[in-house]
Amino acid sequence: MNGFAEDPAYADGYRLWLNYDLISDAVKRQAYANAAQFIAVKTDSPILKSAADELQMGLQGLLGKSVPVIGSIGSRTGGIVLSVNPADVAGQSLNKEGYRIESKGGNLIISGKSDAGVLYGAFALLRQIQTLQSIQGISLVSNPKVQFRMLNHWDNVDGSIERGYAGSSLWKWYELPERIDPRYRDYARANASIGINGTVVNNVNASARFMTSEYIEKVAALANVFRPYGIRLYLSVYFAAPKTLGGLKTSDPLDPQVRQWWADKVKDIYKAIPDFGGFLVKANSEGEPGPQDYGRTHADGANMLAEALKPYDGVVIWRAFVYKADPKADRFKAAYEEFVPLDGQFDKKVIVQVKNGPIDFQPREPFSPLFGNMPKTPLGMEFQLTQEYLGFATHLVYEAPLFKECLETDTYVKGKGSTVAKVVDGSLHGYSMSLMAGVANTGSNLNWTGHPIAQANWYAFGRLAWDHTVSSEAIAREWVAMTLTHEPQATKRIVNLMGKSRDIYVNYNTPMGLSRPWTGVHFAPEPWQARSPRPDWTAVYYHRADSMGIGFDRTATGSKALEQYRPEVQQQWNNPETCPISYLLWFHHVPWTKKLSTGRTLWDELCTHFYTGADSVRWMQQEWAQVKPAINPETYANVAARLVTQQKEAIWWRDAWVLYLQSISKQPIPPPFKQPARTLDEVKQSVNVYLLR
Amino acid sequence: MNGFAEDPAYADGYRLWLNYDLISDAVKRQAYANAAQFIAVKTDSPILKSAADELQMGLQGLLGKSVPVIGSIGSRTGGIVLSVNPADVAGQSLNKEGYRIESKGGNLIISGKSDAGVLYGAFALLRQIQTLQSIQGISLVSNPKVQFRMLNHWDNVDGSIERGYAGSSLWKWYELPERIDPRYRDYARANASIGINGTVVNNVNASARFMTSEYIEKVAALANVFRPYGIRLYLSVYFAAPKTLGGLKTSDPLDPQVRQWWADKVKDIYKAIPDFGGFLVKANSEGEPGPQDYGRTHADGANMLAEALKPYDGVVIWRAFVYKADPKADRFKAAYEEFVPLDGQFDKKVIVQVKNGPIDFQPREPFSPLFGNMPKTPLGMEFQLTQEYLGFATHLVYEAPLFKECLETDTYVKGKGSTVAKVVDGSLHGYSMSLMAGVANTGSNLNWTGHPIAQANWYAFGRLAWDHTVSSEAIAREWVAMTLTHEPQATKRIVNLMGKSRDIYVNYNTPMGLSRPWTGVHFAPEPWQARSPRPDWTAVYYHRADSMGIGFDRTATGSKALEQYRPEVQQQWNNPETCPISYLLWFHHVPWTKKLSTGRTLWDELCTHFYTGADSVRWMQQEWAQVKPAINPETYANVAARLVTQQKEAIWWRDAWVLYLQSISKQPIPPPFKQPARTLDEVKQSVNVYLLR
Repeated sequence: MNGFAEDPAYADGYRLWLNYDLISDAVKRQAYANAAQFIAVKTDSPILKSAADELQMGLQGLLGKSVPVIGSIGSRTGGIVLSVNPADVAGQSLNKEGYRIESKGGNLIISGKSDAGVLYGAFALLRQIQTLQSIQGISLVSNPKVQFRMLNHWDNVDGSIERGYAGSSLWKWYELPERIDPRYRDYARANASIGINGTVVNNVNASARFMTSEYIEKVAALANVFRPYGIRLYLSVYFAAPKTLGGLKTSDPLDPQVRQWWADKVKDIYKAIPDFGGFLVKANSEGEPGPQDYGRTHADGANMLAEALKPYDGVVIWRAFVYKADPKADRFKAAYEEFVPLDGQFDKKVIVQVKNGPIDFQPREPFSPLFGNMPKTPLGMEFQLTQEYLGFATHLVYEAPLFKECLETDTYVKGKGSTVAKVVDGSLHGYSMSLMAGVANTGSNLNWTGHPIAQANWYAFGRLAWDHTVSSEAIAREWVAMTLTHEPQATKRIVNLMGKSRDIYVNYNTPMGLSRPWTGVHFAPEPWQARSPRPDWTAVYYHRADSMGIGFDRTATGSKALEQYRPEVQQQWNNPETCPISYLLWFHHVPWTKKLSTGRTLWDELCTHFYTGADSVRWMQQEWAQVKPAINPETYANVAARLVTQQKEAIWWRDAWVLYLQSISKQPIPPPFKQPARTLDEVKQSVNVYLLR
Repeated sequence: MNGFAEDPAYADGYRLWLNYDLISDAVKRQAYANAAQFIAVKTDSPILKSAADELQMGLQGLLGKSVPVIGSIGSRTGGIVLSVNPADVAGQSLNKEGYRIESKGGNLIISGKSDAGVLYGAFALLRQIQTLQSIQGISLVSNPKVQFRMLNHWDNVDGSIERGYAGSSLWKWYELPERIDPRYRDYARANASIGINGTVVNNVNASARFMTSEYIEKVAALANVFRPYGIRLYLSVYFAAPKTLGGLKTSDPLDPQVRQWWADKVKDIYKAIPDFGGFLVKANSEGEPGPQDYGRTHADGANMLAEALKPYDGVVIWRAFVYKADPKADRFKAAYEEFVPLDGQFDKKVIVQVKNGPIDFQPREPFSPLFGNMPKTPLGMEFQLTQEYLGFATHLVYEAPLFKECLETDTYVKGKGSTVAKVVDGSLHGYSMSLMAGVANTGSNLNWTGHPIAQANWYAFGRLAWDHTVSSEAIAREWVAMTLTHEPQATKRIVNLMGKSRDIYVNYNTPMGLSRPWTGVHFAPEPWQARSPRPDWTAVYYHRADSMGIGFDRTATGSKALEQYRPEVQQQWNNPETCPISYLLWFHHVPWTKKLSTGRTLWDELCTHFYTGADSVRWMQQEWAQVKPAINPETYANVAARLVTQQKEAIWWRDAWVLYLQSISKQPIPPPFKQPARTLDEVKQSVNVYLLR
């Protein structure tokens, strides 16, 4: 190479999984080349052009040859044909965005009922080739199971990202609309390649700026880049905008002037962005304004926006993340209590977006009891890709197992098999719309996500939003092949490492149903934290450790939160004797000395989890060291260094919890584990460093 | 290319001026190749290794051939020899970091008295080749005129950058010390290539975290990357750290315990960073703690730190940027009043760092009257590279003319020729140390600086810190050749454009001695701004526009600030009849209808500046359009787009000022200029957008 850092973009992961390196196996390469002698596409629709461009660029890299794009196929064979065909083929019905890839008449036909379907098919074909699968006689049909597959960016106007750990915002508001960073297109390509068809570009703690004509113009410039990739743009809205921007005396959703203001605003937006996707709203939550400020309900607020959107093809996505500051209440129950009574009252353009768990993206949470309990209201899923509670950008945590665990849990609301996934994809209740959203983990870092393996979380989210039945392992294998290596032993090792990573994290961070939604930057362990502007922003509120034991009693003797689930679910978790250990302290206050099914006391079991969790990071390091020959040196070194940090911080978390809980439980560390070398005060000192300005 | 964004790093400027593209002229290439058949270096010192590595990498790119690095030269000729030689050559004396490049005995000898000297020589040789100059019979000697050539990073622990417009911080504190981003090394290479030998990695509004062992370890990891490039690391310190971190009852610099705390802290730092450079301190300034909190002086505070540093080779850099919140005072005078009485009281390890102007990095300021008035205290220069007041990352402003303007101004303190440059390089007063600091414009954006042309400001700062006698134009020509193009017509055009850019900016932004240090994000025009927590944070405090006229009277009839200069300087600026128009309103309150030397009234002259300034951006666009064939398409499009924004915002500034001042002056817009299309209220509305959360 002839310059800086030996081609930093390539070495450091800028290309993500769209890593079109030359296929080294000449036989395979030739087989693909034989089937890809041209790319035929009839129309000049922007989305089909994106598909043809991507195939051309991808094949150029993978096959090392230039593949021409032609307009008319004539009688030629041996090429790829892109075809939009609204008719169904018997037995292989496609939905609006589905695709079919088939070998037919000597060509590879990629077809769909829409341009977007063909684009997804083009990426699917590239994926087949990138993962070195045969395309001979290929016959592939795939339909997305969820309609709205979106990223949510918690990006602020000043370029910062709330809970972002990979640099600053991708969106350069001061430069838009004139300057179009080429990266915007690469962002769109990456999303389209995994089927993501929507993106909310601004934080749910929304700036009113986005409702001004200045910012609508900026946002429209982004939408123009996303459109040829089948991606619609959405905005988070500041509910009080009619007052702050419009100069009205109120933002009451039932006020005619307010309704008119929103109707006018929506009209302006659609003028600039004809395919605008709609609004995402965080209202009456953590200090944000909302309809309750005027004695109205969430439904009143959402329906007002839905009415404004009525003339257009846009939706309202209303977040259910609400909880009042009530020291006596159980935050677990809040969203259910506020939203279930509103079922049936929402306009048909409204989707309610629910975080996977009842609290807040904890390393392991039971599923939100809203799922299954609002049969008349489409409920969308909100997962968090950015690792707010999962170790920022220095802990290797593959999140697909977390997503899958939630999606596959049975709510029992319509008998056995009523999984969360079936609620979310709309099949259980026959919802008219379906949604899966991921809070993005992207930023301005060269490699997009900070931790190289965090790219897999973005990838897995897209793949699961498309088809939640694919296994975490299959997705990991695919991602590794596209991104890191084809070497079989290394692949196996990395996929295994990724698969275990989330459980390892939970073990040293929040095992057995502990949680950690305390205030601050969510970086350092503070299980002792007891002072905060709100009681439900303290650590002690959640773990409730006392001289007798630890855990939050949510059974009938406690907060009764378990009653929000169906009896079959309650039965699984209601009894401390039979409740799985992984959820034990979510639902029970358990004595330190209580014997568990493992034969250990609760205290000993807790210690075992913390110690083995921290020790497992060493195993991760050893496993990673083994794959060194199979992957590029920069990525190897990058992950290896982060694993050293992870190891250090895993022990930090272990020591913080164990020493703090020991000060309450007065129990010794069970052998073979050793008392931490430092004192509780020393750990607190090390945490205090991160509380300094 | 086979992937994302057609090699984004190269196209988008990641390589900066170290752009080692193949020289297209085969004859020249061969001539260089004949003289660069090997690189001989005897020792394995890390800095010499950096020099050899850089030459090898650079020549590989420029010449398209691999040049071997050899240990012993033997009798070989036709190569490059790196040689450290403490002896002087008659008539060509080198200082510690100077270098000599000479053709001798059939080889190119790069020599210096230190490893760093040789490293600078290696970069100088590459620069010769990059700029296509002959190296036949070369004989080059160069010595840095200033001892400490530093960047100041206003980077915070959360990754944000105060006044940063190019993404987030380069330093990833959560990943350090384990993960070493390869970019840290590229940062060091870029700095070393222009002679920068120090960097303060954290904001002057300093976090106490940097004095903890956790952060010292992180910082030490950065220092390890910088060391092989001759760059020493410095830290900004939080003066109250003995209280907040050390648990002491006071941070009084005369308190023995406080002094011991700092001594111990310094010891810890040097244990981790043996070549630590020292401390930068913002004290008793804009709310930061300092010695005055305890009735002590700046000298007391600085000397305490100097004492702590005594056993080591480190310095204290104490900032003179101070001004009290006094509505009756003139902020212009504050630094002089506080610091001049302390001259002679500072320890010999202390440098006082002074912003170029008396207020705050305005687009055009007179020089700070401190320069020349502290003969017993080494005064360092603080320039701002980041465009806080110069249009963020969307306005093309080449800053070398601003730096030069200040450096070449005559203070007359020792008679004619007593330029600011001679104060700063230490020659005027015989200072024992000299310093030039630039507040960095770097960030995590792929191209480091946001605006592609802003890279030239980083480059020019380094070149001027090394040798302030080089012209702005020569530096621009060099930078263009290394970064953008060798095409002669395009080069001429770009250099001319850059040379005029700062005057154009001043014309539409703050002409004739206006300034704009009002509160907020420093983005939008707010000449009407009159409310702020401090009077000297309002706009009206500075321009003092009233029904009679505009400007700040700093003569004997006003604040008397002019008295801080020597009589010769006063004479230039004292008389409104002869004061240059560019400084007029800095020193005089001038009636709207007053006839100026131009034949226009003050009001008409102001309008002329605003209108022609804004119009000149169109000229910039036209000029840029002409160079399109000569530069890479991505950089062309990038700058072209930013010029569109600049044009829009230039008119915004013009309209804001003109309409607001018109509401006071009650004067018509003079022909041929036209009354702005919008009203003052409309401009205010558009500004209010940027004041919304």
